[in-house]
Amino acid sequence: MYKSKRDIGSASDTSHFNANRRISMPLLRTSISGVNQQELKEKDLIKNLPGQPPVSFKQYGGYVAINESAGPFFYYYFVEAIRANNSSPLVVWFNGGPSCSSLQGAFLEHGPFRVHSDGKTLYRNPYSWNDETNVLYIESPAGVGFSYMNNSSALENIGDKKTAENNYMFLVKWLERFSEYKGRDVYIAGQSYAGHYCPQLAQLILHNKNQTLINLRGVLIGNPGLDSNDEIYGEYEYLFNHALISPKQWDNYNKLCINGEDSGGTECFKSQWSITEQTSHINLYNIYAPICLNSTLTSKPKEYTTVKNFDPCSPEYLTAYLNLANVQKAMHANTTKLPYAWTKCNYEQNDLWSNNDRDASMIPILEELTGSGVRVWVYSGDMDAAVPHTSTMHVLRKMNLTIEKIWRPWFSEGEVGGYTEEYKNKFTYATVRGAGHMVPSDQPIRALTLFTSFIRNMPLPGTL
Amino acid sequence: MYKSKRDIGSASDTSHFNANRRISMPLLRTSISGVNQQELKEKDLIKNLPGQPPVSFKQYGGYVAINESAGPFFYYYFVEAIRANNSSPLVVWFNGGPSCSSLQGAFLEHGPFRVHSDGKTLYRNPYSWNDETNVLYIESPAGVGFSYMNNSSALENIGDKKTAENNYMFLVKWLERFSEYKGRDVYIAGQSYAGHYCPQLAQLILHNKNQTLINLRGVLIGNPGLDSNDEIYGEYEYLFNHALISPKQWDNYNKLCINGEDSGGTECFKSQWSITEQTSHINLYNIYAPICLNSTLTSKPKEYTTVKNFDPCSPEYLTAYLNLANVQKAMHANTTKLPYAWTKCNYEQNDLWSNNDRDASMIPILEELTGSGVRVWVYSGDMDAAVPHTSTMHVLRKMNLTIEKIWRPWFSEGEVGGYTEEYKNKFTYATVRGAGHMVPSDQPIRALTLFTSFIRNMPLPGTL
Repeated sequence: MYKSKRDIGSASDTSHFNANRRISMPLLRTSISGVNQQELKEKDLIKNLPGQPPVSFKQYGGYVAINESAGPFFYYYFVEAIRANNSSPLVVWFNGGPSCSSLQGAFLEHGPFRVHSDGKTLYRNPYSWNDETNVLYIESPAGVGFSYMNNSSALENIGDKKTAENNYMFLVKWLERFSEYKGRDVYIAGQSYAGHYCPQLAQLILHNKNQTLINLRGVLIGNPGLDSNDEIYGEYEYLFNHALISPKQWDNYNKLCINGEDSGGTECFKSQWSITEQTSHINLYNIYAPICLNSTLTSKPKEYTTVKNFDPCSPEYLTAYLNLANVQKAMHANTTKLPYAWTKCNYEQNDLWSNNDRDASMIPILEELTGSGVRVWVYSGDMDAAVPHTSTMHVLRKMNLTIEKIWRPWFSEGEVGGYTEEYKNKFTYATVRGAGHMVPSDQPIRALTLFTSFIRNMPLPGTL
Repeated sequence: MYKSKRDIGSASDTSHFNANRRISMPLLRTSISGVNQQELKEKDLIKNLPGQPPVSFKQYGGYVAINESAGPFFYYYFVEAIRANNSSPLVVWFNGGPSCSSLQGAFLEHGPFRVHSDGKTLYRNPYSWNDETNVLYIESPAGVGFSYMNNSSALENIGDKKTAENNYMFLVKWLERFSEYKGRDVYIAGQSYAGHYCPQLAQLILHNKNQTLINLRGVLIGNPGLDSNDEIYGEYEYLFNHALISPKQWDNYNKLCINGEDSGGTECFKSQWSITEQTSHINLYNIYAPICLNSTLTSKPKEYTTVKNFDPCSPEYLTAYLNLANVQKAMHANTTKLPYAWTKCNYEQNDLWSNNDRDASMIPILEELTGSGVRVWVYSGDMDAAVPHTSTMHVLRKMNLTIEKIWRPWFSEGEVGGYTEEYKNKFTYATVRGAGHMVPSDQPIRALTLFTSFIRNMPLPGTL
């Protein structure tokens, strides 16, 4: 999920993220040593998730201490590939927010299971991304989901820089515990504010590649936050062109906020407020989806539960499920009895995230990545108004990309899955037709087609 | 349905429709006399449609001769209101095209039945518009569906003017046969090219109101063709803003077709052709709907047939159903054994429709209607790229309307049904969220909410 990246009417700070930092390695070295990693891995094996149907692949869940004493302690959930072999790649997934749990990705998007409306049992998602690769879901930063600090300083240290460093250190340490994945092809993936997390982590991997061998091959980001200045205009543009706001509101926004002398002033604020009011009753993460009108759990699972018809109350079922004691026990989560429940996003922490970080442009990092041979794919569910395709297209235009293969439809199961364009340096943009912000929730089959094409370094299917 | 209103690259003719004609009445007078209308009505009663579930209301079907000898002979299908009383209004429906059958409206959109995938049996649409009013579906002009001429001149006489005159005469004669509906409130409704048919028929009724008492109260038109100059730009604008064509294609269209010196020339044509190619694999009448990949009839009806999930192969089931001998017999259709099958649109006739008529602006007629106290509502399914909301908004802007109630969401079953704005003279615009060109096919409940609000002269529901 992707909470509004800025307060309406607040001045934007466009100071850019420092693209060239290098993290301090001593901390990293000392914290790896002295623990029997194989033992930890075996302890992390999840025998069965409560209420799950039988499956043939292995699942793990547990904590990795970034710093052994104070933390942070990052919770992870890991699913091995269905057809795992010694070389099947590793994909690391982040849900963004900032401060939203990646267990949403696991249980609402592309993981092997979804939660039934009873909040207690699971059903199989046949379009899980572990059909193709091993997938590692990381709850990051501390304070998100089951991840935590040992002291109250969690909220003081948040931000893009700290998050990227901790994600990097998590990955290095996790690879000690799961050493058979060392040297595998690694892909960093995520959506929404992970448009910051993923490129920043990828950059750290590049900058430290002499010290740790992480074979970074690609970055995949969906409906990503990349450059807030372009995004805000694209959001209102999207709302207008999808008939959610009136021509008058659109004219006013342009006159008062974009072309006016008083941009950011009271009149601009009012025009934005009227837009917020008009659109407050629909789900801006999928403008055509129903909203959840009754989130009460059912005593039995709803009939005809299908992964193809995303139930808008699913986040409520997931919240209920992850707060069950037997589920937490089975997942090796919340072992320290946190004084709060699992929630999909930590809104308090989100509110404290600095505007400097939010407004930083990711364009320089994307350029560094593609220049270094890292495959970068950006995708947009076309029903999302939170980080819409219009915003992303403005960012791409700003990058002044060299087109290698022009815009064309791509296909999945005989239907147009979306449109795609390919640029120099293995940079690809693709839309996913009929999907909102959480693409695999709405279009699981199309999302899996996109994902496998990305991993296999194949163009998206070009024919029926 | 709404076939492309002009050939790509052809020059537009903007000569306007003559808004002040008056039809010749002698023909009308002579043709009414001398027939026992009550008898004809009884013969038109449909006892049961093959394969239909039981219902409590009456259905009629049959022919009305506009001219007793040569024709045209217009086929109609009429469903009485479920809660009919002596004053329940009469709604006349047209599907547009030009040259598409209104039986599509009856069996794919807002009639009481839909056709199962077996092409033989029917299921109930609980959101039928006869829940509120009596609905008369007219196949017009001659050559469309079951309507015909007695000679081969049908194709020579087509056009907006002739169609409006014949529709008017049909209505006068039909009211002789169904005389209990004389003096009732009458509403003219339709979609797509019926954006021409409906205002033109309404205007004729106004101009002839001293001669025949037809209590015209309102006009309701969905995704209507109203002003082709504005519409074409709005179509490409819609495709671009819904990520179906690339920024480059949109730039080219603007440069070569709108702002170029050579508008309408070869380069403009090429830019439009590239757009047509890129969008040829999706259904432009609902850009997010699946296309019909397998139109083979099933031996048994598909399981879980629900009116809420429109099956894209439904037009094929309807075509099979309406060509069954027992169905035609029960409906009193095709009594003269036409040498061709029922089809949803007559594309040959559509091709012969003059560009003068297609390109005529309906704005003067709409202004005449609202100025005469006729309630006019225009609605747009927001997933339609054929006559998209962007096009309709350009037409509304051109009308320079005086806003009486500003843009706001309206509600149906607890969800946002769309957005609406009200103007001076009882003129209302409304979008229907999540609907394509055939609004009641995609959103039957929202369409019924809109329809009943229109008929009852109530604002669209403003709260959850």
